Amino acid sequence: MSIIIDCHGHYTTAPKQLEEWRNRQVAGIKDPSQMPKLSELKIADDDIRESIVNNQLRLMKERGNDMTLFSPRASFMAHHIGDFEVSSTWAAICNELCHRVAQLFPEHFVPVAMLPQSPGVDPRTCIPEMEKCIRDYGAVGINLNPDPSGGHWKEPPLTDKWWYPIYEKMVEHDVPAMIHVSTSCNACFHTTGAHYINADTTAFMQLIQGDLFKDFPTLRFIVPHGGGAVPYHWGRYRGLAQEMKKPLLDTHVMNNVFFDTCVYHQPGIDLLNTVIPVKNVLFASEMIGAVRGIDPTTGNYYDDTKRYIDASTILTPEDKHAIFEANTRRVFPRLDTLLKKRGK
Amino acid sequence: MSIIIDCHGHYTTAPKQLEEWRNRQVAGIKDPSQMPKLSELKIADDDIRESIVNNQLRLMKERGNDMTLFSPRASFMAHHIGDFEVSSTWAAICNELCHRVAQLFPEHFVPVAMLPQSPGVDPRTCIPEMEKCIRDYGAVGINLNPDPSGGHWKEPPLTDKWWYPIYEKMVEHDVPAMIHVSTSCNACFHTTGAHYINADTTAFMQLIQGDLFKDFPTLRFIVPHGGGAVPYHWGRYRGLAQEMKKPLLDTHVMNNVFFDTCVYHQPGIDLLNTVIPVKNVLFASEMIGAVRGIDPTTGNYYDDTKRYIDASTILTPEDKHAIFEANTRRVFPRLDTLLKKRGK
Repeated sequence: MSIIIDCHGHYTTAPKQLEEWRNRQVAGIKDPSQMPKLSELKIADDDIRESIVNNQLRLMKERGNDMTLFSPRASFMAHHIGDFEVSSTWAAICNELCHRVAQLFPEHFVPVAMLPQSPGVDPRTCIPEMEKCIRDYGAVGINLNPDPSGGHWKEPPLTDKWWYPIYEKMVEHDVPAMIHVSTSCNACFHTTGAHYINADTTAFMQLIQGDLFKDFPTLRFIVPHGGGAVPYHWGRYRGLAQEMKKPLLDTHVMNNVFFDTCVYHQPGIDLLNTVIPVKNVLFASEMIGAVRGIDPTTGNYYDDTKRYIDASTILTPEDKHAIFEANTRRVFPRLDTLLKKRGK
Repeated sequence: MSIIIDCHGHYTTAPKQLEEWRNRQVAGIKDPSQMPKLSELKIADDDIRESIVNNQLRLMKERGNDMTLFSPRASFMAHHIGDFEVSSTWAAICNELCHRVAQLFPEHFVPVAMLPQSPGVDPRTCIPEMEKCIRDYGAVGINLNPDPSGGHWKEPPLTDKWWYPIYEKMVEHDVPAMIHVSTSCNACFHTTGAHYINADTTAFMQLIQGDLFKDFPTLRFIVPHGGGAVPYHWGRYRGLAQEMKKPLLDTHVMNNVFFDTCVYHQPGIDLLNTVIPVKNVLFASEMIGAVRGIDPTTGNYYDDTKRYIDASTILTPEDKHAIFEANTRRVFPRLDTLLKKRGK
């Protein structure tokens, strides 16, 4: 039996005190007299328990998902708001909450850290928060936002040396990054229907254009939401790499890039598993996320992605074990260490 | 036997005089003394013949494609360069060239017009060029760029009244628009590997968010490149529409939106035809475009998309006829009229 590990979950159901405090922080950017103190945010353990037991944990049990790699709500990272100081305070609060979730439910949640990114600010400013989360909270990975502007795309591509300080720390601590944008503040891009998916596609293409993994052979990225448009256009990406005289994608990027299974229908999951090697696919649902409803064509939740993997006739039982557990333990070695300590 | 109609071809092989003239025009934006006269662009019919016979027409014959709806090279539209005057002159030149191709090879090419869009400029300025192309050149459709900034996305979404003057003329003349961006001048977005695909996804999501087809029930859009990421994430889009309390996509957008088959591998085409109704799929290859090489896994050109349709076991012969011919005649009624006049 595999441990079913969902590598992509966010704390979308945090107690409402969190949002209220954030609203005051945002108001405080314009009017410093309104800026709340950290000590004014009070969330009791029982509030956290309730927000989890009735939501993520309930659905995990219903669906048979054992464990979720759990990070702050992606759309609330909103790195475009305020300056580094604002992002830094906000990231610290959100990461601590995920840490508390993991302490309260250690069998079910393991933290992944958001970074205190801010548009145009040197990413090395994120390192103290990142290292604190790894060291003190047991974070096994990070979420890296390639566009802290929120839909204006003003940072350099991910292959630029601008980002290298983060990559050096990722390699040092052996943690992967999920490439994950936040809320779009560009009216053209719907957050979860366009910006998220576009960012996935964009990031993968940047990695094809560059040679990042020559500099960082052990760096690992998860491209979420099934890799954006990439598997559907796998021929295009193979062909573009060929036009650019890059090596085959298998060696150029696919030792370092992994796609999650946040694709909310069976044919999409089947395509993913037809074109992308099993070793590059990690189980995930991002549940209680963008798409919370029930698919009228199946009667099941759109984001109950375990059903699609279970129902796959393309994957062998060994493949499914790789996707549900083994790949994620390989890509997140700190998770593997944790599980081994627990005799798993 | 169907007439095999490729609804998405660009004049990517235009004689080099065109690019040379454009380079001088671009230089002339900064230094008006260098601005070339229209009369300085000299392209003989033989130059055009050669550029077509050895390229598009040769491959069309090899592949069994009878006819291409042919528009100016998408990446060269470059609406972000200069002002409306620059775009206007450039669009007129490019559209006239496609018209000449269609005059020289009337059995094989039918023109589709580019518009002289310019960032921030009222789209109604495009109407004279659009109507000239329909009236004088026999253009059966237009290409509409949702982001004339080239990757900065500063215009309003396609559902905004900003765009309505174009839509009114599309309805009046019964021409559809392919939603097609041009070159990216944002370093984050590779033109054909990210910007094109992102624009497709973005446009479709904008159409879900809005209610444009209530105002224009007969308006028709082709979302190229297989609809960007949309078919792969069909569950996500169905679910997002549901969260937004929109009608089912079948009625909300799928009477008005069509996807082409520019998906460069068999599994992608198979997914498209698994989730998208046959009536919404139009054959296209965008050949001699972004991906010109041969797929080492098949020995065939990536962009020889007819092979994927031919090989499909999902589609019936009737379905294939719809995709190769009937749907395109329905979506482009002026093409249908033209073909009927020819007894086809």
